[in-house]
Amino acid sequence: MAGNSFGKLFNLTTFGESHGVAIGGVIDGCPPNITLDFDAIQNEMNRRKPGQSSIVTQRKEPDEVKFLSGIFEGKTTGTPIGFVIENANQKSNDYSHIKDSYRPSHADYVYDKKYGHRDYRGGGRSSARETASRVVAGAIAKQVLKDIKINAFTSSVGDIFIDKPYQDLDFSKIESNIIRCPDEATAEKMIARVKEIRKEGDTIGGTITCVIKNVPVGLGEPVFDKLHADLGKAMLSINAVKGFEYGSGFCGAKMKGSEHNDLYNSDGTTKSNLSGGIQGGISNGMDIYFRVAFKPVATIMQKQDTIDKDGNIVEMQGKGRHDPCVVPRAVPIVEAMAALVLADFYLLNKMY
Amino acid sequence: MAGNSFGKLFNLTTFGESHGVAIGGVIDGCPPNITLDFDAIQNEMNRRKPGQSSIVTQRKEPDEVKFLSGIFEGKTTGTPIGFVIENANQKSNDYSHIKDSYRPSHADYVYDKKYGHRDYRGGGRSSARETASRVVAGAIAKQVLKDIKINAFTSSVGDIFIDKPYQDLDFSKIESNIIRCPDEATAEKMIARVKEIRKEGDTIGGTITCVIKNVPVGLGEPVFDKLHADLGKAMLSINAVKGFEYGSGFCGAKMKGSEHNDLYNSDGTTKSNLSGGIQGGISNGMDIYFRVAFKPVATIMQKQDTIDKDGNIVEMQGKGRHDPCVVPRAVPIVEAMAALVLADFYLLNKMY
Amino acid sequence: MAGNSFGKLFNLTTFGESHGVAIGGVIDGCPPNITLDFDAIQNEMNRRKPGQSSIVTQRKEPDEVKFLSGIFEGKTTGTPIGFVIENANQKSNDYSHIKDSYRPSHADYVYDKKYGHRDYRGGGRSSARETASRVVAGAIAKQVLKDIKINAFTSSVGDIFIDKPYQDLDFSKIESNIIRCPDEATAEKMIARVKEIRKEGDTIGGTITCVIKNVPVGLGEPVFDKLHADLGKAMLSINAVKGFEYGSGFCGAKMKGSEHNDLYNSDGTTKSNLSGGIQGGISNGMDIYFRVAFKPVATIMQKQDTIDKDGNIVEMQGKGRHDPCVVPRAVPIVEAMAALVLADFYLLNKMY
Amino acid sequence: MAGNSFGKLFNLTTFGESHGVAIGGVIDGCPPNITLDFDAIQNEMNRRKPGQSSIVTQRKEPDEVKFLSGIFEGKTTGTPIGFVIENANQKSNDYSHIKDSYRPSHADYVYDKKYGHRDYRGGGRSSARETASRVVAGAIAKQVLKDIKINAFTSSVGDIFIDKPYQDLDFSKIESNIIRCPDEATAEKMIARVKEIRKEGDTIGGTITCVIKNVPVGLGEPVFDKLHADLGKAMLSINAVKGFEYGSGFCGAKMKGSEHNDLYNSDGTTKSNLSGGIQGGISNGMDIYFRVAFKPVATIMQKQDTIDKDGNIVEMQGKGRHDPCVVPRAVPIVEAMAALVLADFYLLNKMY
Repeated sequence: MAGNSFGKLFNLTTFGESHGVAIGGVIDGCPPNITLDFDAIQNEMNRRKPGQSSIVTQRKEPDEVKFLSGIFEGKTTGTPIGFVIENANQKSNDYSHIKDSYRPSHADYVYDKKYGHRDYRGGGRSSARETASRVVAGAIAKQVLKDIKINAFTSSVGDIFIDKPYQDLDFSKIESNIIRCPDEATAEKMIARVKEIRKEGDTIGGTITCVIKNVPVGLGEPVFDKLHADLGKAMLSINAVKGFEYGSGFCGAKMKGSEHNDLYNSDGTTKSNLSGGIQGGISNGMDIYFRVAFKPVATIMQKQDTIDKDGNIVEMQGKGRHDPCVVPRAVPIVEAMAALVLADFYLLNKMY
Repeated sequence: MAGNSFGKLFNLTTFGESHGVAIGGVIDGCPPNITLDFDAIQNEMNRRKPGQSSIVTQRKEPDEVKFLSGIFEGKTTGTPIGFVIENANQKSNDYSHIKDSYRPSHADYVYDKKYGHRDYRGGGRSSARETASRVVAGAIAKQVLKDIKINAFTSSVGDIFIDKPYQDLDFSKIESNIIRCPDEATAEKMIARVKEIRKEGDTIGGTITCVIKNVPVGLGEPVFDKLHADLGKAMLSINAVKGFEYGSGFCGAKMKGSEHNDLYNSDGTTKSNLSGGIQGGISNGMDIYFRVAFKPVATIMQKQDTIDKDGNIVEMQGKGRHDPCVVPRAVPIVEAMAALVLADFYLLNKMY
Repeated sequence: MAGNSFGKLFNLTTFGESHGVAIGGVIDGCPPNITLDFDAIQNEMNRRKPGQSSIVTQRKEPDEVKFLSGIFEGKTTGTPIGFVIENANQKSNDYSHIKDSYRPSHADYVYDKKYGHRDYRGGGRSSARETASRVVAGAIAKQVLKDIKINAFTSSVGDIFIDKPYQDLDFSKIESNIIRCPDEATAEKMIARVKEIRKEGDTIGGTITCVIKNVPVGLGEPVFDKLHADLGKAMLSINAVKGFEYGSGFCGAKMKGSEHNDLYNSDGTTKSNLSGGIQGGISNGMDIYFRVAFKPVATIMQKQDTIDKDGNIVEMQGKGRHDPCVVPRAVPIVEAMAALVLADFYLLNKMY
Repeated sequence: MAGNSFGKLFNLTTFGESHGVAIGGVIDGCPPNITLDFDAIQNEMNRRKPGQSSIVTQRKEPDEVKFLSGIFEGKTTGTPIGFVIENANQKSNDYSHIKDSYRPSHADYVYDKKYGHRDYRGGGRSSARETASRVVAGAIAKQVLKDIKINAFTSSVGDIFIDKPYQDLDFSKIESNIIRCPDEATAEKMIARVKEIRKEGDTIGGTITCVIKNVPVGLGEPVFDKLHADLGKAMLSINAVKGFEYGSGFCGAKMKGSEHNDLYNSDGTTKSNLSGGIQGGISNGMDIYFRVAFKPVATIMQKQDTIDKDGNIVEMQGKGRHDPCVVPRAVPIVEAMAALVLADFYLLNKMY
């Protein structure tokens, strides 16, 4: 109930604060007999980790995952997979200034009000560091899903966006640049924009688009647990996310039915795919695609007024090493959460 | 797991097909000793029911809810509240044409593939008729929430939208027109647009904005069950919804941190509210507001090609009485789902 | 959370008070395409219903189940099966004497303390009438389970018990007598004992044994959701149950390992079965058997002192029509709950 | 769903195999602001750990718990408490003989059939070593429960049992002897019996009684999640448990209603307590007491025939260091599981 678990059959529980001993999690319900590709798991971790490029936080965390259980002779056993990721780089003194003050648009204030006692170091539990555990579980979920391919990429940074349908993009180029945008010309502009913003001591938002291919027909439960509803919840549970749309999304709200309907081919595929691969909450075998909005990182390297615990106005300036734009590092997190949702419904669908 | 239940502590399970004997549900976890206002419940039902105005489906359903349990001498007892709504107006013959064919952008095809056997009459379980049960539960949830005020309204139809911040609107005017738009000039344009669309035998999408006031600080769980993540899932589980954004939403993704951050007043309120009343997944006491995108209704009164069960191309034309725009009737559904989410977190927060 | 739902994949939610409008439930997660045998369902209802013989309560309730959804053309559709059973025989005046007083060893007192408002008529939600809904769901679960055969029977009444291993009993004789004991000589003694007890205005306890045959290897989850742990919970959730043991049970606690171990045959079956068909929480393909203890019915036709809401000592005498021994009517309830547990794990096991 | 989590609001997920890197768990839903007594936690671990006395397994495991999160400055923060217990003493070579053979009355066979791949070392996940994680969580649950006192003790070993009601026992003596029986004369006999059994290379079963005092009225949910149903499930989920009874238990099944009913005092307490502190699934404020049956440990130091993976009959003899009787080490496990159930319902009851 306290909301640190995700998924029904393929279930992840995470724990850990940014500057505690370690973060980690337990994956319960992973099918047995899967030969895990550990390099692939670490590769996902590397895509998320700090310090990976010049446009992300320069904090150094090796982010190596250590598996404690559920794997024997390289294969899953069907028992829970416990894992930890040590917090190697705990510069706790960086955070003394926020012990008694609330950073604007951060969770410090609400944690204090809700719990009355919080680990303030580095944001504690509210830090996006928690998502490293999601990436571990997502990397395993991807291996459960085999043929289902999940590709996320940066589709906009500030007002710079890819001006093409995703079908015109080459996903193999996503990892070819540090912003994770498969359109190279746009990528360059985005990177320049992030560097500029960082120089200003500011931050900027962006969007990530995710495309899922080879989804079998029938995933999703049709009423409350619609496939896109669970995808939406998964994405909205990621730090800094402000919006989710799938298929035609908000544009669809401006359209007419005669424009929006996806007509069938005789094999059950559809000529258009404004539905985004989901009808009535159930996958129809077409590509699933959705877009996720991320706000600008709240920690800026500029002075801001804020309040302390007693309501006094105090001046605050961001310290430490923060991301000027969260989007490049969030790409693998979006994929991981999508993989968790898909793996869950994939297993659930075996009931039928 | 099959996804017909929603909520943790305040839990709704629904059942029923559009043209079966009845639809209904069970509310488990409603606190005891609440003196129910049955008129208020029926009033919510009336806001959703077909035939309520000239711009919605002219199908007649009285949509009267009959409570079977959980209420004694007018007050809740803490035991499950079972209820049914009879399907009074079952014109099953209207639907013979879809017995063996799949309506474009409907769930007929995926239901057939997933389950192998479906009640095709009126869309069966995939019909938005199911949402009547949500409105019943939501109306009770509102009474649990007492001081928390939830107001949804039509914010756009096609490309006509309210060009004002919600703070400039008078929510008491929402019910003063049949499109449920509190801005009267815009309402008129929207109504005209819907009538025009209907005349074309077409349909049109729209958006609903919802504002929740007087939310106590502390609702929501901070990792996977963030308050906005559960609100998002709730909204995305409503038929025809394609997108959800809260606070700054997709616009926030274009902004800079220095613009986006909500600075504190000394009482813990914030000067701006781009956060949308939620920080780190937890309510901060400011207004919660979000926007939901609805696609155009898939059933149009125009000829479309589609396929039958055997993959033959057949011509289909919408029959029966359908909504040209789902948005006015969806306003109470959005409120109901918001109320379910809030009631759940409100009860859960008593743990602390 | 409020505990009116049972099961993970095959899930039953029940509602309803003894003297309300109706009781009923929703079965969520029943697989599609099962052609239901409605006579078999009603037959289970008849085994539980009051008035069925001279040794049970003479209250008349037709206990006819009306299905509202989830079934189309006689087959399940995979959508939730809603059902109601009307409370035909509401002699509410029978219960005015317990409005303000607490019957000894009943739930009146704790309901009042927990909820502050209760439907006192006939025990309201705490009445065993609620179990009629379980029997409906159990009857459907049995049809999901097909080859798995569940047989429960009365194994003792007071100190009269069947003095044979279950392997020596002919289960086809269970329904041949009104106490549901397959050993005829013992059955006669039990019936005589119950009649005697009733004449005294008293009640008596008993035990039910349940044997489940043809269980595939592998049902059950090995840690908290052991197959026998969920069977135990299921049985202990039935009104008046005080104990549960499976396999060697409490006798096993007196044994030595060398006596207790079940040695294997080369086909994986075991020579003995003190394990009761379950090892480490997982079915091993041998018969599952367990025993359930029921206390004597608390309502007796003798005067007892008790207290009213204000703590005054008042005299009370049971009124109405009650069972002198709950066991014969509880036999189908035990089977129903066993079927729910098995169906749940049967579906869950498809994940592997 | 895979059953490695327990509890609704106060939730424990465990992971880990007997001879893997570590075992551990995550406690989600622990209230914030509890100053933890770490010595008390370690003390519970010591009560369960191997090597603690001459009548338990002489395997050496320090069983030190390391907390990774959820605790800051000695107090809980309301975020998940992750913890690990290293497997210090992994003599994996001890278990090579069971790699391809199935120990009688162990879970080896069913794990192989269910999962197709198992960590055979020391029983892997089916080892009772998993319960160390439960003891950690239970020790914290006890600190949440404060005034509620949970005392379990050995009430029988083989056919030696305490011949007194629990009210005549001095619980402060439970820890005064190595069998954990508060009646000293009986304790001596039990200890002698266990030593004798060990000399024979055999094992023996026993029972544990648990008494819970100072329980507030109102804990438990009245239908499926009755307090005693969840206690029963909790106990049955412990390795080697074969039966559970509470209050009058199986004896109650032999009694008459006039004997069994607990008559009220004017303050709502009852003169007798055959109900075992629970009526209709809800605590009534009287002592809760129940009894749990443990089978003899399956690993014996005698030769037994068994089968290998191919169905060949092979001879097997227990190796390693095993308990001749599981009961003394199971006493803290019973308390821990009882504490988890109580803490869960205690928090849930705050909803009312």
